[in-house]
Amino acid sequence: MAPKAEPIVSVVMGSDSDLPVMEESTKILEQFAVPYELFLTSAHRSPARTTAFAKNAAQRGIKVIIVGAGAAAHLAGVIASETLLPVIGVPVDATSLKGLDALLATVQMPGGIPVATMAIGKAGARNAALFAVRILALENETMRNNLIKFVDNMAKDVAIKHENLMGIRS
Amino acid sequence: MAPKAEPIVSVVMGSDSDLPVMEESTKILEQFAVPYELFLTSAHRSPARTTAFAKNAAQRGIKVIIVGAGAAAHLAGVIASETLLPVIGVPVDATSLKGLDALLATVQMPGGIPVATMAIGKAGARNAALFAVRILALENETMRNNLIKFVDNMAKDVAIKHENLMGIRS
Amino acid sequence: MAPKAEPIVSVVMGSDSDLPVMEESTKILEQFAVPYELFLTSAHRSPARTTAFAKNAAQRGIKVIIVGAGAAAHLAGVIASETLLPVIGVPVDATSLKGLDALLATVQMPGGIPVATMAIGKAGARNAALFAVRILALENETMRNNLIKFVDNMAKDVAIKHENLMGIRS
Amino acid sequence: MAPKAEPIVSVVMGSDSDLPVMEESTKILEQFAVPYELFLTSAHRSPARTTAFAKNAAQRGIKVIIVGAGAAAHLAGVIASETLLPVIGVPVDATSLKGLDALLATVQMPGGIPVATMAIGKAGARNAALFAVRILALENETMRNNLIKFVDNMAKDVAIKHENLMGIRS
Amino acid sequence: MAPKAEPIVSVVMGSDSDLPVMEESTKILEQFAVPYELFLTSAHRSPARTTAFAKNAAQRGIKVIIVGAGAAAHLAGVIASETLLPVIGVPVDATSLKGLDALLATVQMPGGIPVATMAIGKAGARNAALFAVRILALENETMRNNLIKFVDNMAKDVAIKHENLMGIRS
Amino acid sequence: MAPKAEPIVSVVMGSDSDLPVMEESTKILEQFAVPYELFLTSAHRSPARTTAFAKNAAQRGIKVIIVGAGAAAHLAGVIASETLLPVIGVPVDATSLKGLDALLATVQMPGGIPVATMAIGKAGARNAALFAVRILALENETMRNNLIKFVDNMAKDVAIKHENLMGIRS
Amino acid sequence: MAPKAEPIVSVVMGSDSDLPVMEESTKILEQFAVPYELFLTSAHRSPARTTAFAKNAAQRGIKVIIVGAGAAAHLAGVIASETLLPVIGVPVDATSLKGLDALLATVQMPGGIPVATMAIGKAGARNAALFAVRILALENETMRNNLIKFVDNMAKDVAIKHENLMGIRS
Amino acid sequence: MAPKAEPIVSVVMGSDSDLPVMEESTKILEQFAVPYELFLTSAHRSPARTTAFAKNAAQRGIKVIIVGAGAAAHLAGVIASETLLPVIGVPVDATSLKGLDALLATVQMPGGIPVATMAIGKAGARNAALFAVRILALENETMRNNLIKFVDNMAKDVAIKHENLMGIRS
Repeated sequence: MAPKAEPIVSVVMGSDSDLPVMEESTKILEQFAVPYELFLTSAHRSPARTTAFAKNAAQRGIKVIIVGAGAAAHLAGVIASETLLPVIGVPVDATSLKGLDALLATVQMPGGIPVATMAIGKAGARNAALFAVRILALENETMRNNLIKFVDNMAKDVAIKHENLMGIRS
Repeated sequence: MAPKAEPIVSVVMGSDSDLPVMEESTKILEQFAVPYELFLTSAHRSPARTTAFAKNAAQRGIKVIIVGAGAAAHLAGVIASETLLPVIGVPVDATSLKGLDALLATVQMPGGIPVATMAIGKAGARNAALFAVRILALENETMRNNLIKFVDNMAKDVAIKHENLMGIRS
Repeated sequence: MAPKAEPIVSVVMGSDSDLPVMEESTKILEQFAVPYELFLTSAHRSPARTTAFAKNAAQRGIKVIIVGAGAAAHLAGVIASETLLPVIGVPVDATSLKGLDALLATVQMPGGIPVATMAIGKAGARNAALFAVRILALENETMRNNLIKFVDNMAKDVAIKHENLMGIRS
Repeated sequence: MAPKAEPIVSVVMGSDSDLPVMEESTKILEQFAVPYELFLTSAHRSPARTTAFAKNAAQRGIKVIIVGAGAAAHLAGVIASETLLPVIGVPVDATSLKGLDALLATVQMPGGIPVATMAIGKAGARNAALFAVRILALENETMRNNLIKFVDNMAKDVAIKHENLMGIRS
Repeated sequence: MAPKAEPIVSVVMGSDSDLPVMEESTKILEQFAVPYELFLTSAHRSPARTTAFAKNAAQRGIKVIIVGAGAAAHLAGVIASETLLPVIGVPVDATSLKGLDALLATVQMPGGIPVATMAIGKAGARNAALFAVRILALENETMRNNLIKFVDNMAKDVAIKHENLMGIRS
Repeated sequence: MAPKAEPIVSVVMGSDSDLPVMEESTKILEQFAVPYELFLTSAHRSPARTTAFAKNAAQRGIKVIIVGAGAAAHLAGVIASETLLPVIGVPVDATSLKGLDALLATVQMPGGIPVATMAIGKAGARNAALFAVRILALENETMRNNLIKFVDNMAKDVAIKHENLMGIRS
Repeated sequence: MAPKAEPIVSVVMGSDSDLPVMEESTKILEQFAVPYELFLTSAHRSPARTTAFAKNAAQRGIKVIIVGAGAAAHLAGVIASETLLPVIGVPVDATSLKGLDALLATVQMPGGIPVATMAIGKAGARNAALFAVRILALENETMRNNLIKFVDNMAKDVAIKHENLMGIRS
Repeated sequence: MAPKAEPIVSVVMGSDSDLPVMEESTKILEQFAVPYELFLTSAHRSPARTTAFAKNAAQRGIKVIIVGAGAAAHLAGVIASETLLPVIGVPVDATSLKGLDALLATVQMPGGIPVATMAIGKAGARNAALFAVRILALENETMRNNLIKFVDNMAKDVAIKHENLMGIRS
C-alpha cells in the first residue's frame, strides 16, 4: 500500500485518528497512479513541524497538498499560509458537533489565503484526491484519459446498480 | 475592465445579482493578468446552456472554472459533473439563511465529483481567483513570482496597517 | 413487490443506499395501487442519464416524479429543470450533518423551478407518495375514495393505539 | 388585480403581514390566468375559521391550496390535515430566526399528512404557484403550453442578461 | 401505575412512540399525587379528536395540559388554540434533526396563543410536570409543601452524590 | 402606564435594553387589569439582588414571574431555582446569534427546575403575559371571561383583516 | 487518585454524570502535580450550595475554578458572578443538541462577568486544566518548565505517531 | 488613549476592521490601569509576524494575550501554539454567518492547546479584558480591590437603572 515514486501529492492529517477518513484520498491517488506521501502534523501541537513541512513542500516536488483535520480545523489554513501550492481541505467529523466546526474553520478563510474545501468526512477525502487529479490532469494527458475513464465508469456503475436494483425487486 | 486575450479562467454566476460578489474574483484575475471570461447561466433556468458551457469549456482553452451561486446552489456541482476541469465554488449569501444553504449545497458534494468550495461571499470570490492562480502558477513561473509578491505584499500590508493603527491611537 | 402496469409515478433515487428510505414511497404507492417505477440515477455521476430520464418522463406517461437524494442533494432540482411534471423531493440523511444539507439543497430552490420538499428521511418518503396520490386523486375518484379511507384509518388507528396504551398501563 | 372566475387555487396566509411575500404567488397565478382567491386565517388565532376553510375547499372547486406562514408555522399542516387536496407550504421569514423556524415547522411533517414545502420567502411563494401550475397542467393542455413558454422565456432571459452583463462591462 | 381520581392534569402525546419520554411527566405527577390522565391524539392524523379533546378539557375538570410531540410538533399549539387552559409543550427528539425541529415548532408560537415550552426530551417531560405542580401549588398548600420538600431533597441529593463521588475517588 | 394595586405578576428583565421587548408583556397585563411590577436585575451583575428578589416574591404576593433576558440567558433559570412560583422565560434577541443563544440557555433547563419558555422577542413577551393570565384565570372567573373575549376578538380580527385585504385588492 | 495537598484548583461539575468528562481535567492536574479538589453542585438544584462554594473559594486558597456543565449550562456563569477568581467553563454534551446548548449557555456571557470557555467535552476538560496550568505557571517556574516539557512532548509525539503510521503502511 | 508603561497584556487582532470590537478590551484595561499594547497580525496573511510575536511575548514581559479574529478565526489558536502564556480568544462577527464560524473556530480547540473563548463581539472583548484582570489580580492586591469595586459598581448600576426605569414609567 506504500507509495514509491517521488510524491507529487501530500496527504496531511492532524491526528492519526483521521487516517480512516484520509485513506479515502490515498485509495483514489493509488487508483490514478499518483505518487503521494502521507504526513502527520498538527497545527497546534507541532507548529514548527507544520511550518517546515509547508515551506519545503514545493521544492520537494509536491504539486498539491490535501489536508484533513477535525474540531477547530486550522491545519489547512495554516499550511496554505506558508506555501503557494494549492491546498485542499477535508473537514473531519471529530467532535460532538459532527464536523460542522471543522467545516466552518476550514472553509470560512478570509480573503488572501484560499483553502479549497471538500465535504465533511470520507466523501470529502475521496473528492479531495479527485480534485488533485483534475489539477494534475491539466498538464498530463494520461491522467486526463484516466479521468475520462473514471467518470465513464461512474456513470456505467449507476446503470449497473439500477439493473441490480430491478433484479432484487422483480 | 473587459478581458481581451483568450480566456483561461471562466467566472460563472447563476444570476446577475451575484455580480457584485463575483467581481471580487475578476479583480484578482486582472491583478494577475489572467485572461478570463464572465458567463451567466443558471443550473435550473437554463440547464441546456449550462451543460453546453461545461462540456465545451476545456476545448475552448479554459483551465479553471469559478462558479458563484446562492440558495440551493447546484450550479458548481452541475458544471463539475459535465467537465473534467477543476471547478471552484463560491457560495453566495442570497436568502434569509445568509448563505448557509448555498455553502452546504456547494460543499457537501457526494464522492466522485469534487467542487472546491470557498467562503461565503466576497472573501470566497477573492480566494476562488487566488486558488485559480495557485493552480495556474504550477506551470507558469511568472505567475508564481507574482504570487510570491502578492503574498509578501499582504504581509507588508499587515505591518503598515499596524503602524497606522499605532499612529491613530498615539 | 414489482410494479406491472404502465407506471404513472417515478420514484427516483441518487444512490442505491437510498433504497431503504425510498421504499417508504413504494409501499404507499402499492397500497393505493398506483403503478410506479423505480429509477436510479445521479445528478453528478450520471448527468446524461438524469437529463434523458427527466426529458422523457412525461411522454412515457409519468405524471409525478418523486426524488430522494442525500448530501448536496441536487437531483430533484436538476430533474425539475428538465421536465414540466410536478417533482417531489425527499432529503435523505446521508452525511454527518443528518440531512440538514440535503434539506437545504432540496428546498431552497430559486424562483422559477419548484421542488415540493418533504421531511428528511422515511416520513418524507412516505409523505411524498401520499402527496403524489393527492395530485392523482384530483382526477381519479377511486383514488380519492381510497384516500378518504386511508385518512379515516389513520384517525381510527390513533384511537386504537390510545386504547392499547390505556390497556398496558391499567 | 382582483380574481374574477371561480377560483381553483386558494392562496392562504396566516397574517396580513405575509401579503408582500404571498403576492409573489398571486402574480404567477395571474400570469398563467389561473383563477384564485386570497384567504386570511390563522391556525392559532382563528382555528374554527381555518378548519371550516379546509373542510370546504374541495367542494367549492379548489384544486390546490398554497399556504404561507411564519414562526411556528402550523397553518399548512393544519389545513393539510382537514382536506385531501394537495397543500403547498411557503415558510415566511417572520422572526429573528430568519425563517428557519417556519421552514422546519412546515417541512418536518410526520408521515401521513404531506405538505409540499417551498423555499423560505418570495422565491418560495413564486415556486408554490409554479408548482400549482405544474399540477393543473397535468390535465390542461393550454396551461402546459404556457408552462413550456414560461420555461423557454426563463432560459432566454438568462441569455439576454448575459448579453447585458457583457455590454455593461465592455 | 394507573390514575384513579378525576384527573386535573392531562398528559397528551402525538404518537405512542413518545410514551418513554412522556412517562417522565407521569412519574412526577404520581410522586406529587396529582390525578392525571394520558391521552393519545395527533394534530394531523386525528384533528377532530384533538379539537374535541381540547374544547372539552376544561369542563372535564382539567387544569393543566402537558403535550409531547416530535418533528413539526404542532400538537401543543393546536391544543392551545382550542382551550384557555395553560398548555405546556415538550419537544420530542423524533427525527434526524434531534428535536431542534420540534423545539422551534413548539416554542416559536406567534403572539396570541402561548405554549410554555420545556427542554427537548425526558428532562423537558419531567419539568413539564413540575411546572404543572408549581401552577397547582398556587392554590394548594399541601402541594406547595410537597414542592418545598422536593426541592430540598434535590439539594440534599447533590450533597449526597458529592459525598459518593469523594468516596469512589479516595 | 404605572401599576397601582399590589402586584401579582412580576416582569423581570436582565437589562434596561430589554424594555422595548418586555413592554409587550406589560401591555397585555394592563389589558387584563392584572396588577404587576417591573423589576430590573441581572443574574450575573447583581446576583444577590436576584436571589433576594426570587426568595421574597411569593411572600410579597407574586403569583407568576415573567423573565426576559438575552445572550447566555441564565436569569429565568436562576430565579426559578430560588422560588417555587411558576417562572416564564422570554429569550431576547441581544447578540449576533439572534436570540438562539438566549433560547437554548432558557429552554434547555435540566430536570428539576422548570422554566416555561416562550418565543424569542416581542411575540414571546406577549405570550408570556397571556400564559400568566391563563394561570391566573384558573381561579378567577372574571379573568377567564376576559380571556374568552380576548380569544374571540383575535378570531374576529382575523376575519376583519381578511375583509380589509379583499377591499385593498378589489 | 485522590488529591492530598491544599487544593489550588477546584474542578466543579453540575452532575455526577459529568465525571467521565471532567476527569480529563483531573488527569492533567495530576500530571502537573497541581493540588485540586472535586466539587459537585448544581446551579439550579443546589443554588445555596453553589453560592457558598463560590463565595468562599478564594479565601480557601483556590486560585482557578474549572466548571463543567451540560444543557442550559448556567453553573460556570453563576459561579463567576460570586467570585473574582478566573472561572473556566467546559460545556458538556448532555442533551440531544450535542452540547451546542451548553456551549452557547457558557460562552455567550454578557459583558461584566467573564467565563473562559473551552471546547465541548473531553478535549475541553483537558484544555481547561492546561489553561489553569498556564495561569499558575505565570508565578511558578517549576510549572512553567513542566509546561515546556509537556508541549515539547506533544510535538515529539506527533513525530512518533507519524513514524508509526509509516511503519503500519509500508 | 495610548499606553505608556511596559505592557503586560497584549491585545492582538487579525484585521484593523476588528478595532471597534477590540477597543472594548482596551477600555477595560485602561479602567484598571493595566499597561497594554495593541498588535495587528494575521494568522494567514502574516504568519511569520504572528509566530515571532507569539514566541517573544513572554520574554517581553507580557502575561496575558487577548486575540480577536473573525471568519475561520485561527489567530488565537496559532498564537496559543507558540506561547505558554494564557491566550484569550474573542470571536468577531465578520461574515454572513454572524460570528458562529469565528466562535467554533476559536473554541473547538483540540486537546493540548487551550484558548479561553469569550462571547462573540463587544461583550466578549470586554470580558476578555476582565478575565485578564482576574488572572493578574491573583498576584496583585490593588487590582483585586479594584475588581471588587468594579463588581460592586455593576451591582449598584443595576439598582440605579431599575430606579430610572421606575421614574420613566411612573
